[in-house]
Amino acid sequence: MSLIVQKYGGTSVGSTERIRRVAERIARTRGEGHDVIAVVSAMSGETDRLLELGRELSKRPTEREMDVLVASGEQVSAALLAIALNDRGVQTRSMLGHQAEIRTDAVHTKARIRTISKERLQAVLDSGSVVVVAGFQGVDDEGNITTLGRGGSDTSAVAIAAAIGADMCEIYTDVEGVYTTDPNICSTARKMRQISFEEMLELSSLGAKVLQIRAVELAMKHRMPIHVRSSFSDAEGTIVTAEENVLESVVVAGVTADKKAVKVTVRDLPDYPGVVAQVFEPLAEANISVDMIIQNVSDQGETDLTFTVSQEDAARAQELARELSKTLGGKDVILDDHVAKVSIVGLGMRNHAGIAARMFRLLADEGVNIEAISTSEIKTSVLVHSKYTELAVRVLHDGFGIGDTPGA
Amino acid sequence: MSLIVQKYGGTSVGSTERIRRVAERIARTRGEGHDVIAVVSAMSGETDRLLELGRELSKRPTEREMDVLVASGEQVSAALLAIALNDRGVQTRSMLGHQAEIRTDAVHTKARIRTISKERLQAVLDSGSVVVVAGFQGVDDEGNITTLGRGGSDTSAVAIAAAIGADMCEIYTDVEGVYTTDPNICSTARKMRQISFEEMLELSSLGAKVLQIRAVELAMKHRMPIHVRSSFSDAEGTIVTAEENVLESVVVAGVTADKKAVKVTVRDLPDYPGVVAQVFEPLAEANISVDMIIQNVSDQGETDLTFTVSQEDAARAQELARELSKTLGGKDVILDDHVAKVSIVGLGMRNHAGIAARMFRLLADEGVNIEAISTSEIKTSVLVHSKYTELAVRVLHDGFGIGDTPGA
Repeated sequence: MSLIVQKYGGTSVGSTERIRRVAERIARTRGEGHDVIAVVSAMSGETDRLLELGRELSKRPTEREMDVLVASGEQVSAALLAIALNDRGVQTRSMLGHQAEIRTDAVHTKARIRTISKERLQAVLDSGSVVVVAGFQGVDDEGNITTLGRGGSDTSAVAIAAAIGADMCEIYTDVEGVYTTDPNICSTARKMRQISFEEMLELSSLGAKVLQIRAVELAMKHRMPIHVRSSFSDAEGTIVTAEENVLESVVVAGVTADKKAVKVTVRDLPDYPGVVAQVFEPLAEANISVDMIIQNVSDQGETDLTFTVSQEDAARAQELARELSKTLGGKDVILDDHVAKVSIVGLGMRNHAGIAARMFRLLADEGVNIEAISTSEIKTSVLVHSKYTELAVRVLHDGFGIGDTPGA
Repeated sequence: MSLIVQKYGGTSVGSTERIRRVAERIARTRGEGHDVIAVVSAMSGETDRLLELGRELSKRPTEREMDVLVASGEQVSAALLAIALNDRGVQTRSMLGHQAEIRTDAVHTKARIRTISKERLQAVLDSGSVVVVAGFQGVDDEGNITTLGRGGSDTSAVAIAAAIGADMCEIYTDVEGVYTTDPNICSTARKMRQISFEEMLELSSLGAKVLQIRAVELAMKHRMPIHVRSSFSDAEGTIVTAEENVLESVVVAGVTADKKAVKVTVRDLPDYPGVVAQVFEPLAEANISVDMIIQNVSDQGETDLTFTVSQEDAARAQELARELSKTLGGKDVILDDHVAKVSIVGLGMRNHAGIAARMFRLLADEGVNIEAISTSEIKTSVLVHSKYTELAVRVLHDGFGIGDTPGA
């Protein structure tokens, strides 16, 4: 008998018919003798509907209240799934963030989990019940409702799995697993059987959209294996696990593209120590994550600073940068959202020289201009004009030979 | 400076536009220097939408989970109203049932409030905030979410007003106040300026639908005055208050009709001591409230027992009565939903003889047959065929001369 945490995303619980199918699957797992904790997202579309209501009432809605508002979405799914399971004769109880004592910090809309009460969850499991936990939500030390940010239910599931010592954390989604690249862009994309936490981390931060990056970080920290699979089929998905458990390591595991990057350029900043820190401190305080950062060589004591942020943070980042630029006597702050970040990821890059050079050559041969470069141990990313996104992905995916053999 | 509790029903918060208007009214009250606690219902239609989702998944959905499900409706309204108020610069915090520590018993879907944390609410008021409390919900001693039954937000509002020692509890609704009878049935219906708790109790239990009966009971117990008024106008509504504060006492204050009564008749029950108790005990255990009870004289050791219940409890009541009737050797159990209960209510009835007789005469003169009668100190009710409902109401309302003078 194992203890399994199963997370079901918004599309998996998008209608009562689909919730019934999720209940069926949980009943089957239970029938095989396993203990189950299910973690659910809001029904698809519900979070957006709620956000929209909040935004109709205020251009800058109070974040504390937005959390109260959107947390209701997961509450509804949790109750509905519990109802469906009880109806099938599978004894079940729903638990909300405050009931499972999912304690977070107090950063509304982007909170981080600190602790989870193992005892509360275990007590319900011990009573012979399946537990359905509302994902995405927690409470801070004052009892205020917090949410974990978009896709936070993945993090809820992994955190719960780690807290309770589950044997496996299954993430049910609307795709079959993790692919070597986006199958919509590249017909030779292939589903991976296994991938390391490290590679997955780079893939998901780059826009693979299958798993929330914080969930992968957390799983890596606790060495909790994740099985990413489809809630619409019984096919095996992709196991994300520790590096030593990955059987075959490849040089380049996957190619990803992120079109949602926005390039922010601050022109003619004075170039003395501490200026760059002054630019990024207010962004950090506003919880805006900056991705790539490029600073050009100084020209007559002035420099241009370029960085990328997500689309949702772009307006706020521009505003903050503008305020600062004005104080420092810099020029205008320019946004460019016609950019895409294309990356190759693979553990093997650590031991193989020349992978980056080969990447630049493959792109150059197709006439794709590179606007910026950033690298890490197992990843190389380039910023290109967004019109080249699909071309760049295909060139790299096939150039590194990581997909299915065409026609095979 | 006063402390005012304002309760806004589902239609008052039925859209973001309406929520904005509620925020405007609260801001005005706050601007006059008062402290405000607002209690909100779910947006109109939302509770029904949620109940429907639950029922799609199960014919007998778990009541604990239905409470988790529907409580989300008030959570959404509370958050939205707080967002709207903060947007106007009125510092506001929402509080859910568990946050305001609204403790109830554990009877899901029909829970009763036991205690409310004055300290929690007062602390937020003391910080200079308006508090918006999600109505209708609480938590039991185990931290499970409970709901107070349909219309429970009225009860939440009065209980909070009593706990915190408010000066007034305003109930905002979609009507202008309490009328002498239904204006849709009787054109001479008149809005009352004042009414005693006792009269309101009889009126609302009889279907006046303006205030939940338990809210009135609670207000009477704590002598908390209620101002029932429209959220769509600034007109004064009706003050419900202690008898000694009601300036003019009338013989008959109002006439009400309840078409949702269902008559249950248990035929040929053996007539020995304890039989009637045996019939009603299982109904009480199932939390079914029985209204009128009529037992005919015994005929050869057998008797017919008739009682009325609400439409929603009718099927369950019939089922329970059938089981019992079978055990006791009684005959069939018959439901009749073509009945209506028409009542006159007034404090003055205590001191005036012959009011009931006059009521029966007025009905008889119009050929309305009376199927059953029940009386209390300040109320007389008759059960009639439902086709006579409107006729009976008009005859009594005008016969006792309690409305506007026609043509005046």
